[in-house]
Amino acid sequence: MINDELRNEIVPIYKRIVRDLEHGARDDFNLCFFDLHNYDQAKVYQALPPQLRHQLIEWVDPSDLADVFDLIEPEVVEEDQLLSEMTPRYAADVLNDMYIDNVVDVLDEMTEDKQEHYLQQLSTANATELRHLLSYEDQTAGALMTPEYVAIKSSASIVEALALVKQVAEESEQISYIYVVEQDKLIGVISLRSLIVHPDHEKVKDVMTQSLVTVLPNDDQEMVARLMADYDLVAMPVVNEQNKMLGIIMIDDILDVIEAENAEDYERFAGVHNLDLEESPFQSIMKRLPWLIILVFLGLGTASIINHYDQLVQKMSVLAVFISLITGTAGNAGTQALAVSIRRITLKEKKGIFRMFFTELLIGLSIGMITGGTILLVVWVWKANFLLGLAVGLAMAGAITVANLAGAFVPLLMESLKIDPAVASGPFISTLSDLTSVIIYFNIASWILNVWF
Amino acid sequence: MINDELRNEIVPIYKRIVRDLEHGARDDFNLCFFDLHNYDQAKVYQALPPQLRHQLIEWVDPSDLADVFDLIEPEVVEEDQLLSEMTPRYAADVLNDMYIDNVVDVLDEMTEDKQEHYLQQLSTANATELRHLLSYEDQTAGALMTPEYVAIKSSASIVEALALVKQVAEESEQISYIYVVEQDKLIGVISLRSLIVHPDHEKVKDVMTQSLVTVLPNDDQEMVARLMADYDLVAMPVVNEQNKMLGIIMIDDILDVIEAENAEDYERFAGVHNLDLEESPFQSIMKRLPWLIILVFLGLGTASIINHYDQLVQKMSVLAVFISLITGTAGNAGTQALAVSIRRITLKEKKGIFRMFFTELLIGLSIGMITGGTILLVVWVWKANFLLGLAVGLAMAGAITVANLAGAFVPLLMESLKIDPAVASGPFISTLSDLTSVIIYFNIASWILNVWF
Repeated sequence: MINDELRNEIVPIYKRIVRDLEHGARDDFNLCFFDLHNYDQAKVYQALPPQLRHQLIEWVDPSDLADVFDLIEPEVVEEDQLLSEMTPRYAADVLNDMYIDNVVDVLDEMTEDKQEHYLQQLSTANATELRHLLSYEDQTAGALMTPEYVAIKSSASIVEALALVKQVAEESEQISYIYVVEQDKLIGVISLRSLIVHPDHEKVKDVMTQSLVTVLPNDDQEMVARLMADYDLVAMPVVNEQNKMLGIIMIDDILDVIEAENAEDYERFAGVHNLDLEESPFQSIMKRLPWLIILVFLGLGTASIINHYDQLVQKMSVLAVFISLITGTAGNAGTQALAVSIRRITLKEKKGIFRMFFTELLIGLSIGMITGGTILLVVWVWKANFLLGLAVGLAMAGAITVANLAGAFVPLLMESLKIDPAVASGPFISTLSDLTSVIIYFNIASWILNVWF
Repeated sequence: MINDELRNEIVPIYKRIVRDLEHGARDDFNLCFFDLHNYDQAKVYQALPPQLRHQLIEWVDPSDLADVFDLIEPEVVEEDQLLSEMTPRYAADVLNDMYIDNVVDVLDEMTEDKQEHYLQQLSTANATELRHLLSYEDQTAGALMTPEYVAIKSSASIVEALALVKQVAEESEQISYIYVVEQDKLIGVISLRSLIVHPDHEKVKDVMTQSLVTVLPNDDQEMVARLMADYDLVAMPVVNEQNKMLGIIMIDDILDVIEAENAEDYERFAGVHNLDLEESPFQSIMKRLPWLIILVFLGLGTASIINHYDQLVQKMSVLAVFISLITGTAGNAGTQALAVSIRRITLKEKKGIFRMFFTELLIGLSIGMITGGTILLVVWVWKANFLLGLAVGLAMAGAITVANLAGAFVPLLMESLKIDPAVASGPFISTLSDLTSVIIYFNIASWILNVWF
């Protein structure tokens, strides 16, 4: 998401490439550009001004540019924009030559109109396959997989398998595993390493592993990522309920998923969306301000509650002393509960809602009573006033219990109401808990003080 | 970190294995156990009661158990404990047969005494290598790398290279890339895919890629992770300043790094350490409580400031109305700045400290003035009191500016003082900002009201 700039080592080469493009020095351009790693080629391509990209397109074949586009992150870069700079024919050639799972990612970021526009220019076979892959829901195994894997029959010999790998290695995105498929069903897997180690005449079926780890196309991408990390897999096969082989998911796509999911968690929690370390101060301000202003109006609700108890504060100004202690502590407890809750949602840890409610109620009450008891003692000693201590302590206990439940359940509520759960960030929970804490505090205080004074 | 339980599919097999171990049914045990994926074997092994693990060790060779231990996460599981259940000879055999980078991870988690104990039982060559790898600082490329890679001379032919790969495939952890090394220096790389695709008689030097991406042994693991994700690499070569090849870092270790670094970021921010979704309510309470209680005492500082201005509040109880609005909003601004700052630290984004100071000052002032201006208007209209509005608005602007700077710089300060930066969590920053906000608020209020009333 970050690090959009050229690596330092690349900068001089970039400058030379710019010069070559400007002066029509094609031979020197070829020397420089094709010596770069595809990823650096991608960075250079993106950094060029549009008219030089135009020049570059004239010199570079679509199939070579496809290798470059395979290394661009479509979530970060407007590939759509880059493609629209090309002639439709050239753009279609690039897409035809890219790995199909990467094309899916590119198309996924477009409007449906544009998607259709590109699909119609692609080869029929490719377009059909793409339409199928695009039909899987976002963030599922199906949306991540590629149908470009190597399959073989169990009766084949090792030497036949190696010959097959040799034949398809050029187009297949990965050849670390060869999948053993009989009548469309996945029955085993054999690693390229095993193929190389075993004698030529042995049969695939005697060498293959049958302890398979597979996922279904509707499985969540986070679960796929966890399985691949646990089992140390470089590719994960996707099968349907009948164990029919549908495709594979590659480790490099999973790396991107893990990065994206973690960033999402973090930003969601912090209430800073699309965190970008390269942004200008103005962009930072425009990103952080709206959320703050919305919360100010929620905070005004809290202010109006205190305002409602103005007479009580006039009578006992010492009540004002403990407002921020109670709201602050409850907010902290709510933030802790929120962190756990967001993690639970990401990991799809579904416990029974009632069990969770009672667990969190128990945790909140325990933390609340211990903290409230502590503060009761402190206030009693400090202000030599047991009833004030009792009011503050009870309010603290109540406020913490409520904030703890809010931190735990507000994100679940947002999730089930299909509201963007990013709304339930730390700042939101602590501002909300300010409101409930103040209500609890002044109700308890006015009750205790009215009864005893 | 999570998901310590057996997968549902494994549970019946686990039960059968328990029965086999209890009844001495070795043949059936072999059938069940060796049919499992190494990762599931590891889970089963850990789930067994100690006396059955004992039985299992008698039936399973150290070399087979080494494959199982290669799949255990040493950060999560006490492998030390597991090893101590074996005879010293057996434990040494397991360690000797594991991949060396995994042994480093296991030893890294032990006390130095125990490390030494195991090192002395290992083969001399292995122990020397291990001591060298253990000398690299934690969380660097050196600490993650393994010296077990495949190297070849550039003058070799493809067929020679393939023969070499075949020969070492059994012991090498990865064979996707073969590194071309001349006089110890890394000069190129060739993928197994290229080896397979190219005709036998071609030379490695004509086929190899020279656009290498490498890291130094002291480079931070987070940087390695980013490069591997960007360049879609399955293995990353580690070289020294003279380009001497030292080892490679594998993608599966990087997956673990990314998970760990992200969890660290998140927990640091949330103030919930060692987040564990499986913990009991009692464990949750014991984990969350200490931090809350510490912050309560910081909150009492805030309370005593308000207490200091008790006379002012008695005179103008309306001041109490806006305490939580100001502390809450400043806390929210501080939390946003903190999120950005923690990300910056993790990614080692070092901007000039002065430039950063002025940027954050500018952001804080702008956000503060806009929010303060809004609140000035609201309070002026609501309370029909311009001076009160001015006091609250100015206090809000000042409190936000300070909280913004605190959120940005407190983690940097902790980092440079070598204090655990986890201390600078969201709850800490908002409690700290309560204190500064209240100081600013009452100073401004008493000044304005003393001057004009």
